[in-house]
Amino acid sequence: MEQKRTINFGAGPAKLSQTVLLQAQKELLNYGGTGISVLEMSHRSSDFSKILNKTESLLRELLNIPDNYKVMFLQGGGSGQFSAVPLNLIGLKEDRCADYLVTGTWSAKAAKEAEKYGKVNIVHPKLDSYTKIPNPSSWTLNPSASYVYYCCNETIHGVEYNFTPETNGVVLVSDMSSNFLSRPVDVSKFGLIFAGAQKNVGCAGVTVVIVREDLLGHALKECPIVLDYKVQAEMNSLYNTPPSFRCPVDVACRSRMNVPFRVGKKEGDDALEKKFLDGASKRGMISLKGHRSVGGIRASLYNAVTVEDTEALAAYMKEFLKEHQ
Amino acid sequence: MEQKRTINFGAGPAKLSQTVLLQAQKELLNYGGTGISVLEMSHRSSDFSKILNKTESLLRELLNIPDNYKVMFLQGGGSGQFSAVPLNLIGLKEDRCADYLVTGTWSAKAAKEAEKYGKVNIVHPKLDSYTKIPNPSSWTLNPSASYVYYCCNETIHGVEYNFTPETNGVVLVSDMSSNFLSRPVDVSKFGLIFAGAQKNVGCAGVTVVIVREDLLGHALKECPIVLDYKVQAEMNSLYNTPPSFRCPVDVACRSRMNVPFRVGKKEGDDALEKKFLDGASKRGMISLKGHRSVGGIRASLYNAVTVEDTEALAAYMKEFLKEHQ
Repeated sequence: MEQKRTINFGAGPAKLSQTVLLQAQKELLNYGGTGISVLEMSHRSSDFSKILNKTESLLRELLNIPDNYKVMFLQGGGSGQFSAVPLNLIGLKEDRCADYLVTGTWSAKAAKEAEKYGKVNIVHPKLDSYTKIPNPSSWTLNPSASYVYYCCNETIHGVEYNFTPETNGVVLVSDMSSNFLSRPVDVSKFGLIFAGAQKNVGCAGVTVVIVREDLLGHALKECPIVLDYKVQAEMNSLYNTPPSFRCPVDVACRSRMNVPFRVGKKEGDDALEKKFLDGASKRGMISLKGHRSVGGIRASLYNAVTVEDTEALAAYMKEFLKEHQ
Repeated sequence: MEQKRTINFGAGPAKLSQTVLLQAQKELLNYGGTGISVLEMSHRSSDFSKILNKTESLLRELLNIPDNYKVMFLQGGGSGQFSAVPLNLIGLKEDRCADYLVTGTWSAKAAKEAEKYGKVNIVHPKLDSYTKIPNPSSWTLNPSASYVYYCCNETIHGVEYNFTPETNGVVLVSDMSSNFLSRPVDVSKFGLIFAGAQKNVGCAGVTVVIVREDLLGHALKECPIVLDYKVQAEMNSLYNTPPSFRCPVDVACRSRMNVPFRVGKKEGDDALEKKFLDGASKRGMISLKGHRSVGGIRASLYNAVTVEDTEALAAYMKEFLKEHQ
């Protein structure tokens, strides 16, 4: 197929490297020889955990991120972070106030969102137009502020800081969505940096958050759990989660979608269940391990799973039963 | 390349249809002849708006969704909705309370999250194990509840409702993440239905929310903007958003990433800017239209944009200037 030559100057979602797209395309139906697409991969699988760990370690290397910083890959975009930042950090000091530099649409939106959760102080005279950065000598920083916030590059107006604001010890927070990884940054000067991936580093749907560890655990009680950095940072650690087949669920409400069952006895026989999973894996049947909170086996029969797929599992179950009866 | 045969019974991210993956793979570098990947496409472009509209219209057809329901495609997954539901709906009545059916891990998590925002009433005696659905005759529903919540299929325990709870007029909310689109549902019985896409309908990162219009606009004031259904529903409507080249931004803070400029005169000449964009498009240079809030032209020079790409733009700018001077 002839490739139409297009030059994409989009502000985001934006151009991706051709090499990256070609590799993604090549492996779209069979990631690293696993026989499935990365789109179909359990987020708890060791293959996915390798992807996550490698991405984090490459990012740590590129930005020279100190060990006392957590790196998270979240959902919700920059707009999600406009809420997450105050929800997690405005309670750092009892005054519940924050200093904002407003140099364009995105920092203005962030400041407005922060007003829901505490007192917001715009540290400089209001700008008539978003075409310059007010001189730091005109800023009135509040020493009792929980943090100072700025947007390092305003994507709409094209206004970029070529210096790092001095906050006299107050936690510094920056939205680097549109200039992330475009030049080195001294991460140690920041309490928190966030960036939507869809501009300089990847595709929409992923937001990178780099946060100093001592800032975790101060979330307001009304903070939605998906925006709580402490919870998200802890989730980054990986969870670890088993011949007669017994389903513990009442017949009346047995799910047609998720079929959990135990092998060997009612509460499951660990050794036998492991054997069952190993055998399944050899037959190309994967992701049958039950959720770590309940153990056992679980077959999920979502729409794309065919009757033939299900029959293959049933046949293997019969075979396994016969062998171990 | 030989395709390893794998049968994926994963609970989500889960198996996707081979036909869908093959089409995604085929068009990964050139979506519908646009010359770019869908991953690189502006969310404001007409091509993307077609994708969004078609997806919505197919979903409306499949589920026979009544006209007075909004359909949204959001981020943040089911866990995001655990917060969004109470943040948007618990304020529907002044008591700020909600009824929850807790029949597994996911409804338990949803109920716990709702406690941050109001009073939560578990309508049935606590279950010893998540293997059954308590008989509706044992439920104590609160007529002053803002809504009744249940999880239609508990993915971990494999417990599924084969009936729709009767709420005597109270708004019914259901998490259908793992049995969405597996059978017909009478949407009109629900105030709100949500479902993560990564099980039955697509890949992780997208959450479908179907909500009755009259329930919009009741969000608590502490609701993060990304979780506000009214804001999200309104954003679904599409926004609409230009030879001498003038950059309005002060030289000291001109962004290296986003280069906005006007054509013709300081505040831009609409006709000339349109002509410039048309000519760029003919040369394969896209996504150069400035943000709708400021107009004009904007070239975003993120990491994947090459020096050659930039030179092509510069050459065209010189040519255009010469022609229109």
